[in-house]
Amino acid sequence: MNSLWSNLVQNLDPYVAGEQPKDKTYIKLNTNENPYPPSPKVMQAIQSVTASDLRLYPDPDASSLRTAIAEYYAVSPTNIFVGNGSDEVLGFAFVAFFKKENPLYFPEITYSFYPSYCRLYEIRYRQCAMANDWSIQFDDIGDSPGGIVFPNPNAPTGMLLSLQQIESLVKRYQDIVIVVDEAYIDFGGDTAIELTQTYSNLLVVQTCSKSRSLAGLRVGYAVGHPNLIAALERVKNSFNAYPLDAIAIRAATASFEDQVYFEQCCNQIIETRDWFTAQLNALSFQVLESKSNFVFARHTQVEAKHLSKSLKEKAILVRHFSSPKIDNYLRISIGTREDMEGLIDSLGSILVA
Amino acid sequence: MNSLWSNLVQNLDPYVAGEQPKDKTYIKLNTNENPYPPSPKVMQAIQSVTASDLRLYPDPDASSLRTAIAEYYAVSPTNIFVGNGSDEVLGFAFVAFFKKENPLYFPEITYSFYPSYCRLYEIRYRQCAMANDWSIQFDDIGDSPGGIVFPNPNAPTGMLLSLQQIESLVKRYQDIVIVVDEAYIDFGGDTAIELTQTYSNLLVVQTCSKSRSLAGLRVGYAVGHPNLIAALERVKNSFNAYPLDAIAIRAATASFEDQVYFEQCCNQIIETRDWFTAQLNALSFQVLESKSNFVFARHTQVEAKHLSKSLKEKAILVRHFSSPKIDNYLRISIGTREDMEGLIDSLGSILVA
Repeated sequence: MNSLWSNLVQNLDPYVAGEQPKDKTYIKLNTNENPYPPSPKVMQAIQSVTASDLRLYPDPDASSLRTAIAEYYAVSPTNIFVGNGSDEVLGFAFVAFFKKENPLYFPEITYSFYPSYCRLYEIRYRQCAMANDWSIQFDDIGDSPGGIVFPNPNAPTGMLLSLQQIESLVKRYQDIVIVVDEAYIDFGGDTAIELTQTYSNLLVVQTCSKSRSLAGLRVGYAVGHPNLIAALERVKNSFNAYPLDAIAIRAATASFEDQVYFEQCCNQIIETRDWFTAQLNALSFQVLESKSNFVFARHTQVEAKHLSKSLKEKAILVRHFSSPKIDNYLRISIGTREDMEGLIDSLGSILVA
Repeated sequence: MNSLWSNLVQNLDPYVAGEQPKDKTYIKLNTNENPYPPSPKVMQAIQSVTASDLRLYPDPDASSLRTAIAEYYAVSPTNIFVGNGSDEVLGFAFVAFFKKENPLYFPEITYSFYPSYCRLYEIRYRQCAMANDWSIQFDDIGDSPGGIVFPNPNAPTGMLLSLQQIESLVKRYQDIVIVVDEAYIDFGGDTAIELTQTYSNLLVVQTCSKSRSLAGLRVGYAVGHPNLIAALERVKNSFNAYPLDAIAIRAATASFEDQVYFEQCCNQIIETRDWFTAQLNALSFQVLESKSNFVFARHTQVEAKHLSKSLKEKAILVRHFSSPKIDNYLRISIGTREDMEGLIDSLGSILVA
């Protein structure tokens, strides 16, 4: 008991991100970063930053970035909210839409920041169980949920829901907000953004960290009805009026203006993922069908914990979660073809040892 | 009533920042920005950003920046917390230390984000009245405050408390956290950071936005006992594990490594402020004694609202608050000597009209 802290902080159990060790150079396949650099236009945008960009407050509305995102998705800038990474955007959405009498629902196996937000904002939640095939059992949602959030594709399974499945949920629960966290949607899924133009209770959250190679820049965004965006703005302006710095606004805007480069990178990662999945299968791994920039796999004989440890000794980092039900799986980010060939070679030698 | 929003969001009344109009070029003296560019070393640091800085997640602990800040103040990196502007750092501190049974106290006239945080985090608060000389009446604090926060110098008065006054408060209320918001301390005040090495209940919050000319970069920090820093880390890691992007970490670190430039800028602003204050007095303004990069002043005959509107017509922006008690004052940021000469000329012509 620490009397200077609030009771709330005593009870927080924060999210733990994948490790970022600095002791040597690793092939880093543990935090779903993109192996390719961002668009050259992003680098040019950063080179063009002026002293005035720095000494003056940034545009609190990040208008240029919101316009670029809106044009990319053929929606209006009034449909767009931007924040300091999709983690901040999600945090604001939890306050704005899920702090209600009735409980929030999210999958039992999912992004582990969701329960952290709930503890921070004192939000009740329940979890939808996973079926044997790792699909989310939305039938577990009671008659009166306070809200629903899930990633699509889900993390860490990588499995995708169809737009039909999402639309049926959004239609069924029209009096609550449903947040679809599309951090990984660009690697083979269909975004639900088009549904936001029909359903005013759907908020789609995306990030520039994965498919746009900008994890270091901290830019995320939400797309939805202006009424939902207005609620997010209220939360933002009660917390930090300028979450996006002037450089991030310029650089992320440039990323959305280079569609060709973006698609090339995504396609390359998809191609590598499919090749890598076949290689894992050949090494007696069971691999869930991924539409993400990672795969979730377990070996039929060898424990994931042992594999993770052995790979680290060979300077390759993958993610192993110690939580029950998934503690025999590895989540492996898709790097370059060369990274993945190195991983397959290392796994081969570990498995014969 | 908007049924998709949480009740909390319905009741938010967010902070409103100073306007950032884009219709023409203004002399901008309304948001306390620094008229000088950041250190050339900051610009060099930005030029040195690599693609890897962007595609990888930033250091979640911002170790290089925390080390640079710690060295600057001769404290330990374990005394330092960094965030996305001091607004984010303050927001986290409100959750960590002020969400208690007993009410938080802050001055009646102060930074208007404080009540916004209280509404967002559902924190009870009371206000200390201002004496006739605009000093803060700390005697209004009850026997059992839940916490105390105030800016030093205060905003928008610009008036400074001595370290002795702060120390007596910190000693008197040792079972609660006292946050001193030193956004403007570098313009003539003494920081209370040295007191954090003696008193484990004192947290000092600072920003790179004002004295370091980095408002566009969004970097703020707190200095205090490791026990207080641990509570802030818990809140951060329940909300957004990577609030500072890789470029901001590099650039702000460079700023702390160029002390000579920093001191030159601060001294120049202090000199201009003192010259400008004398000029205002000569134009029949009453000017509070400022230790900030702004002055708070009222004219003995002409209404502040009229002056603010007339200056805007002459392409000069100053801040006018419509709140009772201060609605006849102007808050005027200190720009370059040339900016302030232009303002004095304009005021002269408005006052004779």
